[in-house]
Amino acid sequence: MNQILKTNSFEPILLNKAEGSWIWDTHGKKYLDCESGMWCVNLGHNHPRVIHDMKKQLNEIIHRNKGFLTPITLEAAEELLKFFPNKYDTLTFLNSGTEAMEFGINFAKKITKRKRVLSLQDSYLGAYGTAKSSSYTSSEDSKLRIPYPLCDSEQCNCLEIYQPIIDDVFQNYSSEFACFVLEPVMVSGGVYKPCKQFIRYICEKIQNSGGLIVIDEVTTGMGRAGYKFGYQLFEIIPDVVVLGKALGNGYPVSAIITNSFLESKLTPAELYYVQSHQLDPLGAAVVKSVVNVFNEEKIVERSKEKIQKLKDFLWSLDQPFIKEIRSYGMIFGIQIQPYNGMTREEIILKFKNQFLEAGILIGYNVNREFIRLLPPLNIQDSEIEFLKEEIIRVFEV
Amino acid sequence: MNQILKTNSFEPILLNKAEGSWIWDTHGKKYLDCESGMWCVNLGHNHPRVIHDMKKQLNEIIHRNKGFLTPITLEAAEELLKFFPNKYDTLTFLNSGTEAMEFGINFAKKITKRKRVLSLQDSYLGAYGTAKSSSYTSSEDSKLRIPYPLCDSEQCNCLEIYQPIIDDVFQNYSSEFACFVLEPVMVSGGVYKPCKQFIRYICEKIQNSGGLIVIDEVTTGMGRAGYKFGYQLFEIIPDVVVLGKALGNGYPVSAIITNSFLESKLTPAELYYVQSHQLDPLGAAVVKSVVNVFNEEKIVERSKEKIQKLKDFLWSLDQPFIKEIRSYGMIFGIQIQPYNGMTREEIILKFKNQFLEAGILIGYNVNREFIRLLPPLNIQDSEIEFLKEEIIRVFEV
Repeated sequence: MNQILKTNSFEPILLNKAEGSWIWDTHGKKYLDCESGMWCVNLGHNHPRVIHDMKKQLNEIIHRNKGFLTPITLEAAEELLKFFPNKYDTLTFLNSGTEAMEFGINFAKKITKRKRVLSLQDSYLGAYGTAKSSSYTSSEDSKLRIPYPLCDSEQCNCLEIYQPIIDDVFQNYSSEFACFVLEPVMVSGGVYKPCKQFIRYICEKIQNSGGLIVIDEVTTGMGRAGYKFGYQLFEIIPDVVVLGKALGNGYPVSAIITNSFLESKLTPAELYYVQSHQLDPLGAAVVKSVVNVFNEEKIVERSKEKIQKLKDFLWSLDQPFIKEIRSYGMIFGIQIQPYNGMTREEIILKFKNQFLEAGILIGYNVNREFIRLLPPLNIQDSEIEFLKEEIIRVFEV
Repeated sequence: MNQILKTNSFEPILLNKAEGSWIWDTHGKKYLDCESGMWCVNLGHNHPRVIHDMKKQLNEIIHRNKGFLTPITLEAAEELLKFFPNKYDTLTFLNSGTEAMEFGINFAKKITKRKRVLSLQDSYLGAYGTAKSSSYTSSEDSKLRIPYPLCDSEQCNCLEIYQPIIDDVFQNYSSEFACFVLEPVMVSGGVYKPCKQFIRYICEKIQNSGGLIVIDEVTTGMGRAGYKFGYQLFEIIPDVVVLGKALGNGYPVSAIITNSFLESKLTPAELYYVQSHQLDPLGAAVVKSVVNVFNEEKIVERSKEKIQKLKDFLWSLDQPFIKEIRSYGMIFGIQIQPYNGMTREEIILKFKNQFLEAGILIGYNVNREFIRLLPPLNIQDSEIEFLKEEIIRVFEV
């Protein structure tokens, strides 16, 4: 491990096999992966259909020059566009979610000929660039990462409090906003879903002022938030959708999806973008395969019962170190509070280690003081039972 | 093709097979790929060993959570570090060359606690971010993309003219430079290699002033410029090396390579970086496989004779539309000039189409007025003969 830059801390365990919801270490011990890799394998690790389709593509063509397309790329585009609940008609495939967010934001900037980006204060939108500077992880102070109400009610009075804040922002900047960038559920930020009325009001304001809605579905897309896409939580129609992570189920492919009437506002020079692996046939084969599995195995529909089981169980927990439980679809966040002389950090790291010992990989964020569960959407019922038993055991402090 | 964003122009041909130096369209016509995809398949398309090793990895594990490493990742790191002619001892794997350049530049900025980046005026360093703003493709005016002399001589007087320019830049900014970012041969910019003495002088100045040398080997690395790495052309020792493209031979993986004594200057928070597919085992398996093929098939050594054959042939051409031929390793640029009432653009597009007709994919850049040949490093002698014959035929205008 000494030859790997310590860009984060690594457990003293090496992994060498993965299948379904499980991942194995080099000693043969297996772990239930409640992080789905990096929230990528919504279909489980090494889904047999996806692996089969990748091997097939490896026999044919994996890469080509920017001036040419491949049939599999066109097929993947068609399948993905059909997968949307509303009509989009054009897209490009890239490699990472951050890159696709950068593309989406720049697309909005060029169309509107404006520079400013509006986002919410707990959003995580990417590892670098404007996507990062619009995220809570940015050290840049931004008045344009605005606070928001949390609310699950269809009839709420959130707007009474928050409308003046939004109006104030728009009064100052409305002619400067290229886009509103929304992560439907702020997963890295703490599993927060903003109020639907609040989001709908911002979307109305941004579109009325000539800006675009760019939706970051890198984590919430492909069924993670209980719908095919997280924006369905708000019943809005984004102008630009960005996908990553689960689109490749472990393979590095992302996409930005939009409409040709927006594309047509740009000149070829403004649209010009080239990246080594943009539209690569191997990535396209993965996308097509993943979308096919979602359709054929009814992944989103079938996840609903599993989500409900986990939700019922987690919400029934009543431990003194649990401050709050938040969940949207197959995204569960357990906010921790100090207990029995232990700090939040001590509790989180203790649980992380105990779960690891018990054969479960959980997610955690010490700064944001919560632990997370984002298992594959097709987690088996027996695996849910195992998880529930171990949570009960570990939480018996 | 209507469902793909027109980020560049696509030929009305669909490709569906690739092997070695060849790529096939859906009508069964084959093309000699003198662009090596996007300058990525230095080992030829679908190299059997690389494809075999990818399939093997697909049976095991392709992706995992950031908190864990895999044995194949450690093996790939070890093999890649051993592949260098000088000692580096730490690295991380990312997805794209641009992302790795951004990482490398930010690494230099954090170590030096400085902001400015020095580059050369024809450099292409990436598709977005600081990597882009330091490139000739950026619309941002930059005094820090400096002019440079072209010269292949070991004893030249380039410094007499250019030393004052360098000294002037350093007089103004030396305490502000985080790094000098060098693309050893500016391939996208026109196949230009700067004077060795000039580069060595800048490197000395930047290091004396406390800045780092960050080398962009995304295109020139892995044997493309006639050496394992392009920086060997200048006999310099960079602080940070960035690899992409040929590191994955068609698969999206990149790397930044440096030394642990530099890493140790940063806090864990400063080093922190997380991306979905960073250090993924599938990418690592590809890197290990590619490095093994370079070693076992002596790709760099064996390319020398092929390079010489192509160079001798191209430099013997004496057509009135050829303004100049430039070549470094397996990178050939043919600068075009107006001829017989045709503009440069007309000539370039005419040749591109004629080569396509003849079954050869060439590279071209209309703005920079040149056509390019960057075939795989292991192009067969019979393929070189085919290419030579077709060039003679097409160039008979």
